[in-house]
Amino acid sequence: MIRASVPGHSLARGTLNLLLLQEPDLGPGDLARVRGRRARHVREVLGAQVGQRITVGLLNGPLGRGELLEVSAEEVVLRVQLEGASPPASGIELLLALPRPKILRKVLQAAASMAVERLVLVNSFRVEKSYFDSPLLAPQALLEELVLGLEQGRHTRLPQVEVRTRFKPFVEDELSSLWPSSQAAKVLFHPGASGPLRPESLGAARLVAGVGPEGGWIPFEVDLLAQQGFKAVSLGPRPLRVDVAVPYLVGQLTLARDVARTQS
Amino acid sequence: MIRASVPGHSLARGTLNLLLLQEPDLGPGDLARVRGRRARHVREVLGAQVGQRITVGLLNGPLGRGELLEVSAEEVVLRVQLEGASPPASGIELLLALPRPKILRKVLQAAASMAVERLVLVNSFRVEKSYFDSPLLAPQALLEELVLGLEQGRHTRLPQVEVRTRFKPFVEDELSSLWPSSQAAKVLFHPGASGPLRPESLGAARLVAGVGPEGGWIPFEVDLLAQQGFKAVSLGPRPLRVDVAVPYLVGQLTLARDVARTQS
Repeated sequence: MIRASVPGHSLARGTLNLLLLQEPDLGPGDLARVRGRRARHVREVLGAQVGQRITVGLLNGPLGRGELLEVSAEEVVLRVQLEGASPPASGIELLLALPRPKILRKVLQAAASMAVERLVLVNSFRVEKSYFDSPLLAPQALLEELVLGLEQGRHTRLPQVEVRTRFKPFVEDELSSLWPSSQAAKVLFHPGASGPLRPESLGAARLVAGVGPEGGWIPFEVDLLAQQGFKAVSLGPRPLRVDVAVPYLVGQLTLARDVARTQS
Repeated sequence: MIRASVPGHSLARGTLNLLLLQEPDLGPGDLARVRGRRARHVREVLGAQVGQRITVGLLNGPLGRGELLEVSAEEVVLRVQLEGASPPASGIELLLALPRPKILRKVLQAAASMAVERLVLVNSFRVEKSYFDSPLLAPQALLEELVLGLEQGRHTRLPQVEVRTRFKPFVEDELSSLWPSSQAAKVLFHPGASGPLRPESLGAARLVAGVGPEGGWIPFEVDLLAQQGFKAVSLGPRPLRVDVAVPYLVGQLTLARDVARTQS
């Protein structure tokens, strides 16, 4: 892990456990150039120097190593070898009632750092409609938050984010082809559910978790999702904020699948 | 769950799923009075009105109901019945390398909302010493963050927070009486561990989880904790930020204990 070598220097936003490169950063040859936030981070926070080697990765591609050739105020130049493996996929996807922007920002970063593969941000009766107007939902803004998460989690695969402003058409018309019950185990984390997650049914390659808004899904929504194969499970007796609930349930799903596979 | 009834009004800090009362708020008789942040929250965020009933709880005591008798700019007066059950304990305790203050604040709130019973904030080779000077570690500041978490999680029991500036004396001299191996199952979440959490060994009433600093525990620390019964387990291939790792592992511990008890 790359660690701050300048004591007391706070990490501006997120932690750069890998330098994530995108196609436009590459070339000519095996060189890569980064500017802006990433260059400042490499220089000021990592305190990296010419000759040093750091972990790099290509967005949606493999991991690799980069040797620093130039470190200036404007730009960092590296010689990169992108011949590592691609980081392992998690198989976890989320159906999330759109949270308020401040919470969404944290959820996007956390989800990317945990290698969540897809987030569908959906409307729900208890979602405030103004949340859909947030500038955070613009593609470039989403990308920025997700990249911070990938840098933290040393992951390269960008989660696919989809926004659906209408709950019923999404659930009735799109959900079954996106997550066919033959391929995906679907659980709905819901305060009203009678029991906790049961590992037995979670050996599937794809795990989909539904997470409601702060006040919970309404019965109509729970019923409609149940018709599409979502089994309601409880997160326990305590209402958790969505940015806490998401890592909590991703931890549970990951362990449940481990247990299911060990037992089968 | 109490929900905001004023559309578009953002929740200042945290969500008040219960109004948490302290002894000085009580009396005379069955009346309770709150001022300041809590009074503003009840009035402005919940939009609560005279005659309405809300969920209340006594710090380190039972839950109950409160009927609003007065709602003014300065003060909220309620008639309270504190005859509910105390919320269930989680049995989960954390040994946490002290994170930087911004992250600690999130961890304190999240831990309280998940009913974590104790947090020992300990030094480690990779903890920056200046973190121990943070004003957030003052008793009143800790209390404020923890109360926000309790209000979110509708929990009343304050986690016990202890700060230890010296790792070795704490582990060698205090740890075995705090967490005797006969009573507590101890796991150390550590990037270098060979495998994930195994539910088999987690039927104990008390579960203690150790979480290292961003760069991980050093081998000396892992060895010393292993001598005190901590079994190293992996959180997976991705380094998670501590405020994401804590809910992730509390979710895993909770599920692991469910599974262990179902199987035994």
